[in-house]
Amino acid sequence: MQLSVQAIQVIAILISALALGVAAWLYTWVKSQPSSNARIAEIGEYIRQGANTFLRREYLVLARFTAVAAALILIFLPRPIWTGSFSENIWMAVSYIVGTAFSALAGKIGIQIATIANMKSAEAAQKGIKPAFMVGFRGGAVMGMAVVGTSLLGVTLVLMLTGDASAVLGFSFGASSLALFAKAGGGIFTKTADISADLVGKVEMGIDEDDPRNPAVIADNVGDNVGDVAGMGADLFDSNVASMAAALVMATSLGGVYGNNVKMVFAYAAIGLLSSIIGVATARIGKSGDPSKALNSSTYVTTAIFAVLTALSTYVFGFEWRIWGATAVGLIVGTIIGITSDYFTNDAKPPVHQVASASKNGPAFTILSGFSYALLSALPSLIGIALSALLAFNICAPLGAESGLAAEYGMFGVSMAALGMLSIVGMIISNDAYGPIVDNSRGLAEMGGLGEEVIAISDELDSAGNTVKAVTKGFSISAAGLTVISLLGAFMSEVNEAARTLGLASEGARFIDNFDIMNPTVFFGLIVGVAIPAVFSAMLMLGVDKNAQRMVAEIHRQFDTIPGLKEGKEGVKPDYDKCIDIATTGSIRELLPAGAFAILSTIVVGFIGGAEAIGGFLTGNIASGLLLALLMSNAGGLWDNAKKFVEAGNHGGKGSATHKAAVVGDTVGDPFKDTAGPSINTQITVVSLVSSILATIFLQFSIF
Amino acid sequence: MQLSVQAIQVIAILISALALGVAAWLYTWVKSQPSSNARIAEIGEYIRQGANTFLRREYLVLARFTAVAAALILIFLPRPIWTGSFSENIWMAVSYIVGTAFSALAGKIGIQIATIANMKSAEAAQKGIKPAFMVGFRGGAVMGMAVVGTSLLGVTLVLMLTGDASAVLGFSFGASSLALFAKAGGGIFTKTADISADLVGKVEMGIDEDDPRNPAVIADNVGDNVGDVAGMGADLFDSNVASMAAALVMATSLGGVYGNNVKMVFAYAAIGLLSSIIGVATARIGKSGDPSKALNSSTYVTTAIFAVLTALSTYVFGFEWRIWGATAVGLIVGTIIGITSDYFTNDAKPPVHQVASASKNGPAFTILSGFSYALLSALPSLIGIALSALLAFNICAPLGAESGLAAEYGMFGVSMAALGMLSIVGMIISNDAYGPIVDNSRGLAEMGGLGEEVIAISDELDSAGNTVKAVTKGFSISAAGLTVISLLGAFMSEVNEAARTLGLASEGARFIDNFDIMNPTVFFGLIVGVAIPAVFSAMLMLGVDKNAQRMVAEIHRQFDTIPGLKEGKEGVKPDYDKCIDIATTGSIRELLPAGAFAILSTIVVGFIGGAEAIGGFLTGNIASGLLLALLMSNAGGLWDNAKKFVEAGNHGGKGSATHKAAVVGDTVGDPFKDTAGPSINTQITVVSLVSSILATIFLQFSIF
Repeated sequence: MQLSVQAIQVIAILISALALGVAAWLYTWVKSQPSSNARIAEIGEYIRQGANTFLRREYLVLARFTAVAAALILIFLPRPIWTGSFSENIWMAVSYIVGTAFSALAGKIGIQIATIANMKSAEAAQKGIKPAFMVGFRGGAVMGMAVVGTSLLGVTLVLMLTGDASAVLGFSFGASSLALFAKAGGGIFTKTADISADLVGKVEMGIDEDDPRNPAVIADNVGDNVGDVAGMGADLFDSNVASMAAALVMATSLGGVYGNNVKMVFAYAAIGLLSSIIGVATARIGKSGDPSKALNSSTYVTTAIFAVLTALSTYVFGFEWRIWGATAVGLIVGTIIGITSDYFTNDAKPPVHQVASASKNGPAFTILSGFSYALLSALPSLIGIALSALLAFNICAPLGAESGLAAEYGMFGVSMAALGMLSIVGMIISNDAYGPIVDNSRGLAEMGGLGEEVIAISDELDSAGNTVKAVTKGFSISAAGLTVISLLGAFMSEVNEAARTLGLASEGARFIDNFDIMNPTVFFGLIVGVAIPAVFSAMLMLGVDKNAQRMVAEIHRQFDTIPGLKEGKEGVKPDYDKCIDIATTGSIRELLPAGAFAILSTIVVGFIGGAEAIGGFLTGNIASGLLLALLMSNAGGLWDNAKKFVEAGNHGGKGSATHKAAVVGDTVGDPFKDTAGPSINTQITVVSLVSSILATIFLQFSIF
Repeated sequence: MQLSVQAIQVIAILISALALGVAAWLYTWVKSQPSSNARIAEIGEYIRQGANTFLRREYLVLARFTAVAAALILIFLPRPIWTGSFSENIWMAVSYIVGTAFSALAGKIGIQIATIANMKSAEAAQKGIKPAFMVGFRGGAVMGMAVVGTSLLGVTLVLMLTGDASAVLGFSFGASSLALFAKAGGGIFTKTADISADLVGKVEMGIDEDDPRNPAVIADNVGDNVGDVAGMGADLFDSNVASMAAALVMATSLGGVYGNNVKMVFAYAAIGLLSSIIGVATARIGKSGDPSKALNSSTYVTTAIFAVLTALSTYVFGFEWRIWGATAVGLIVGTIIGITSDYFTNDAKPPVHQVASASKNGPAFTILSGFSYALLSALPSLIGIALSALLAFNICAPLGAESGLAAEYGMFGVSMAALGMLSIVGMIISNDAYGPIVDNSRGLAEMGGLGEEVIAISDELDSAGNTVKAVTKGFSISAAGLTVISLLGAFMSEVNEAARTLGLASEGARFIDNFDIMNPTVFFGLIVGVAIPAVFSAMLMLGVDKNAQRMVAEIHRQFDTIPGLKEGKEGVKPDYDKCIDIATTGSIRELLPAGAFAILSTIVVGFIGGAEAIGGFLTGNIASGLLLALLMSNAGGLWDNAKKFVEAGNHGGKGSATHKAAVVGDTVGDPFKDTAGPSINTQITVVSLVSSILATIFLQFSIF
């Protein structure tokens, strides 16, 4: 059977609309759940306001940044406007702005639902674990459906309207640059509040995590929303769009914008979304009452449906089986990486036990052993990424054997493997957003005085969120790895396209058909590129460090100067707003420099060494970025669970010296896993997209 | 003026002999210094015995390993013996064995002098800082002269006898593989003892660092010798040989083994050694009595003499000025990197102050801020390495413009820049060995009861050693970076040589003229390569972690079961030997796996992806290896000095909560900077050499 590209695109739009419809329905469902507790409503309102205030201020800063960036794009990209590329530049600038707007919208929707679902889930927990789970899960699913629906919708519309895959890169760059700053800002906010609240509350005073006397407790809950919901949403919106953009650039270069390959990209992306919708719709907590089983099984259901439906579509529409094979490789390797990541962070496995046991000798050993295991944990994931790229490439390369396009088809295969890994992104986001929602409802249950039993239920839901994260994180890090590899391919396509347009191909000298490591310009870029993710994550962590010191001082001030606060006297309340304000102001100030550094260093390297240096630069970014992202994410998860393992009564349990050491590990791990680690993916993506978009400029102006 | 290669080689041999003569003279001088304190002699003897016992056991294990490796080399390398390369294989195996023997000898000489100089320096300190400094410095210089003398001698003899640069690679591989295990074994020993002694002594019991009641105190001093002297000596022997080997492989491929380029390599290497001899001979502590000034100024004197003499030789012998230029670039960039590394670890600069200040909020902030600054510190060094490679390449490439060998000459330039950085390696080793010697004499002064004033002098000498280390470390890490880059070039040379020998060049398909990042096999190797230094350092640190836990238990046992030990009752002595034994046995057990892992993974990747995958693999190793080496070395130095800054009375001084937090940072930093960090250089070098030697095999047998 044959369908035109347009027909498939219309189907993609319909499925996007269906996803948005499902999101709307779930939203109404969550909102209609009963609530009655006035105290919870009051605190929930605080959280909602804090989150919205932060988001408003953040978006205001980013709107200005976007305006400046859009103006620069209009003048210079893809080519200087005076070289006669007027309409291309307008499309690029518009796509960019739309990309940022869609990404911001995804964050906003997430905050909207999360700050309702947290209250509803807390109250539902009074009726048992099942209803509480359903509220939390469906709240998360609103986010999942909205993000994936809008991203597929956006990419499809941009390509239909412009007929130019480069414009999709512009859209993707818009999404990424917003995600970069949103993730950094949210990440700094959430960890500033989390660390400070824990340090003074749990460590110094020995009070409970969500004790309402703690002035930073609301800021901590706000942080869950702005960092883990809004930031994460923007981040995965970006990954998803970037993987489609890379695949589309490659597909277009192989047979144009109406070719079979473009059809496959849209068909598979639409099927991925459809599978996620089915996965979400069928998620039920079983008779066992085990929430992690429910989350994991809906992930696997989605995976299976995706594999079957894509095979079916390949059969029906006569697509290439080899490309389906590459996609399947992505899916399988993603699962394997998820399982091995789980090994290093699961509290039933040796690494967590070893780190907990090492903590008996003090915090230095917690850090040393955890850091070492996290270094080890990078090995299986890196092998997995390397192998899936190698296999996907070699599966698809024969498609171009006759036409001399083997390398191009191979790279297209890699990008489809990334698409395969991200096919279930709807489920990933649902599960990821579920975490902070139930984390919040645990806080609300405690502050609302719902009693020990309800808190216990919330705890169970919370811990399920952590377990599932390991598997989904395996998917998302390796997908990001493959996506940036294929963005490297997209960059090469753009460079060659630019060389053709500029008529440089005939000169020979500047036409590039490889990035040779032995070429000193490439090598120069590579070594400098290695430093960028390191500096980027250092800047974010120093931001957290600086802000947390400020907030700790404020918490101390409140406990010292507000009479009766420490003793929990009736009617005495801390000044929550002051803490929220410190976190907000601090993270707004810190969010621009790190991202700007990454973007500017790309431009500097490009002007020094041209396209060749950038090829190396991207590779260096990928090399150190993947290593640091895996290291930091897994170290954080490992330390978190080692602490929980001790708290469960091992090696002396809560309050022991071992526990104090484990808490140090957890505190170090917090910005590792929630600020720096997950931002690195976005940083690399942004750098890759900036490079592709600036390819023409770099080809024309460079020193070496 | 024209000299034959042989004449220059004879001169090199004479200068080597001069260096060995100077070493012998200095050795006699140190030995003839007066000593009278019986207690110091007794403890010094303990240390000497412990170090020798460890060395004997370590070398026994390594001798077995060497025998097996030599047998394999004999059969398989450079080509399987049944393909008729009988004599080549014998030379390769012999060169390999000689390389390990020379490297082992360097370590042995170091231990020999260091365990005498420590006692002599302690007693000399009774007469003031100047004589104590001279003993410490000249003790270090014995090591410096011996290591550089033997390495130049070895390389020259191997090339003269075999007339084959590949045999030099075999010699270098012998030196590197021994260094890999010696550095790992010594590094695990020294940090096991250091951490355990500090943890129980300083942290738990609040007694002084070198209190003789502490059962681990002798083991700690032994560790300084086997790790920081013997291990470091083997390591720098290896770097020095590797840089010469890489330069010689490249030089030989450009004009044969008797060409002008080979002359330059020997001339410059000999001049480097001569400059170091002069630098050592002129080192005097000035009127200011500042030992760090004395150390730094002798380093700069050496640098200046080297620059002038090489320029002179270039003029006299009519060498290429461009190659001199590349060497000078190496020298200048090395100095700049040294200065910037100093910024991040010097206790008069902001980073150390910030980390000390962050420690007020607890150990988690010590770790977070120190780790972040260390990530930042990688940027200037990486830029420096990248720029010097780019400049050296572009300075020398024009030499090959007419002959179509621009790339080869460029790579030769890079290897000469590395040689330029390492020209002053004699001084670097002298300064580096000075550190553990005066560290030991501080311990002896305390245990020998020489009084506060003498300890204060030893402290000052010790701290000068730390300050100077930052500058020399800048040289050695960046030199290692450039060396492995040129080893990548040597690998490519070997691959092409092998392709020619095998007659593959005519087939086309397997002849390799680049390592294209866009080639999926190269990329596969690259991503896997990124993981290797991470896993390697994790294995070493887990080794320390495991052994230290065992030793801490033993120290506790002794304090608990030996009556009167805790109280320091007259005549009650701890069982020092038991602790030395634990450190010895543990490090012997842990030293093989990490190194074997690095070597085996190279072989596996080579058999999977052939020479192309190995090209990527080496690049991945360099990328993550440089990042981790810089990160770990600088983090360790930073935490060490932040602790000292607090101990100097800032933020509450010794015994405060801030101090405790700073001590946690220092403990984490110890294996970072003394076990894992400095071993990574050697690991990358070994991997590069294994690849070059196995090039022919990989070309013939691989899956992809």
